[in-house]
Amino acid sequence: MFAKLRKTGYKMINKLIEEIKKKKAPVVVGLDPMLSYVPEFIKENAFKEFDETLEGAAEAIWQFNKGIVDAVYDIIPAVKPQIAMYEQFGIPGLMVFKRTIDYCKQKGLVVIGDVKRGDIGSTSAAYAAAHIGEVTVGNKKYCAFDEDFITVNPYFGSDGIKPFTDACKENNKGIFILVKTSNPSSGEFQDRLIDEKPLYEHVAKKVIEWGEDCMGDTYSNVGCVIGATYPEMGKVLRKLMPKTYILVPGYGAQGGKAKDLSLYFNDDGLGAIINSSRGIIAAYKQEEYAKFKEEGFADAAREATLAMIEDINSVL
Amino acid sequence: MFAKLRKTGYKMINKLIEEIKKKKAPVVVGLDPMLSYVPEFIKENAFKEFDETLEGAAEAIWQFNKGIVDAVYDIIPAVKPQIAMYEQFGIPGLMVFKRTIDYCKQKGLVVIGDVKRGDIGSTSAAYAAAHIGEVTVGNKKYCAFDEDFITVNPYFGSDGIKPFTDACKENNKGIFILVKTSNPSSGEFQDRLIDEKPLYEHVAKKVIEWGEDCMGDTYSNVGCVIGATYPEMGKVLRKLMPKTYILVPGYGAQGGKAKDLSLYFNDDGLGAIINSSRGIIAAYKQEEYAKFKEEGFADAAREATLAMIEDINSVL
Repeated sequence: MFAKLRKTGYKMINKLIEEIKKKKAPVVVGLDPMLSYVPEFIKENAFKEFDETLEGAAEAIWQFNKGIVDAVYDIIPAVKPQIAMYEQFGIPGLMVFKRTIDYCKQKGLVVIGDVKRGDIGSTSAAYAAAHIGEVTVGNKKYCAFDEDFITVNPYFGSDGIKPFTDACKENNKGIFILVKTSNPSSGEFQDRLIDEKPLYEHVAKKVIEWGEDCMGDTYSNVGCVIGATYPEMGKVLRKLMPKTYILVPGYGAQGGKAKDLSLYFNDDGLGAIINSSRGIIAAYKQEEYAKFKEEGFADAAREATLAMIEDINSVL
Repeated sequence: MFAKLRKTGYKMINKLIEEIKKKKAPVVVGLDPMLSYVPEFIKENAFKEFDETLEGAAEAIWQFNKGIVDAVYDIIPAVKPQIAMYEQFGIPGLMVFKRTIDYCKQKGLVVIGDVKRGDIGSTSAAYAAAHIGEVTVGNKKYCAFDEDFITVNPYFGSDGIKPFTDACKENNKGIFILVKTSNPSSGEFQDRLIDEKPLYEHVAKKVIEWGEDCMGDTYSNVGCVIGATYPEMGKVLRKLMPKTYILVPGYGAQGGKAKDLSLYFNDDGLGAIINSSRGIIAAYKQEEYAKFKEEGFADAAREATLAMIEDINSVL
């Protein structure tokens, strides 16, 4: 399906918005599987087959991911696998990262690869090829990981970003560029004032500029990342960048609250997609969902997702 | 060898300095193998065995890397594989990234993984585990990629850096944090003035702070990256951060010149290590080394490395 859409000039941001509207859920589930989130019975089975190896860990994560995806794919538009959680298990982990991407796309989900890559131009071109572009081998072309969107780090400036925006245009993909991150110390550099404006606003202005050439119907294929933990900044940035989709991490486990999240949306009810990782995939560990027990981890994830969607829609 | 050193509290920056002194070469060869750098006869052989696939590309890159490493390992202290160039070939590419790390360590080289990772704390912890730390699987521990140093992006601030410095301390590893990058547009954000000082100086001050707790004998295990293309800035930063080792990309193909590079060194003749990638590994494509032809790509790389070492030592 995606291959066909690609040829007809389909824009990935349109696809994301369409799925958000269809599911009535501006929500993305973060597939960030720490091994400590995986139920014991899954780990036991995986270690029985592969011993306590990287392969065993990867198999456990795959079974866990598959359970979660099967339980929630019909109620959410998108998933966001965090590559670091796979990279730590080396090659077997990265094979499961790829397997997860493919499985989620099969299920009709938009896949946001949370990779936060960024480098000088020639190197960014290789990262873009790896994730949202193509690499040429002789007369053949391949996209190694083939996510729909990826996250990108802006520290290198325009020439480090251009290969990613080029890939967006050539392959109808999208990116989300870090503007204001959700972590406690994000202000150390990002909040510092330059000409009386914080650095993140200067980055935001560049994101708008980079995105102008990559427009979908109403929003750009070049989005940004703004943490749910900084709603006052989200409010200012929302007004500054009306055509930029905002990927919002930090809801739930990191402390972001629904009542603040309305500030990240435009009047059309669009413009933001809220991520939750731990709060969904490890829901069965919370008191609220304890009744599901380990065996019901996937059902607990579905319940937590439904609760999150209701929570967010209640403030829109 | 490294495992034993680790247990005796050996510091990675000491090891790097020792190798630089032994080889009289403050030089690192960047193993950034674009497929276009690989001689045709190597590609033909690889494609004959694996067809024009990601596996074929990865095999070609491996044969190319091995040729280069065999030709230069005795005259250089370190190599810097750029992971993006492997990541673009997916799982087979990343397997060759790992194989290259292992082979270079076998040859006694210090390996700087140019990965430029960085994220919120919990995610940085996973990246640190992947590259310079350990991940726990049941009762076993693994380091998936196991470089000696990696490069790190500072945009998230202290809590995004801490897992990397923790890993340095726990495993006697090192990192190089981006301060002023070599690319033309690096100034867009990095040069902007905050309290009358450019952003990169504020980052530099934090690098000093983060590094104080990770000292080797004379230099910190927390180094920084400053491009050869900005010598005036290198000069200021060198004075600002006397105990910080500087990894200097941008020499040669990117335009950095030896006469400027003396500014990156301290009076002890130490404090900087200069990287060249294309200028070494694709030397056979330059007019100066054309006599080696494709078949002599490795010998051309050795000649170019010797010339680079002489060039840099001439200004120290």
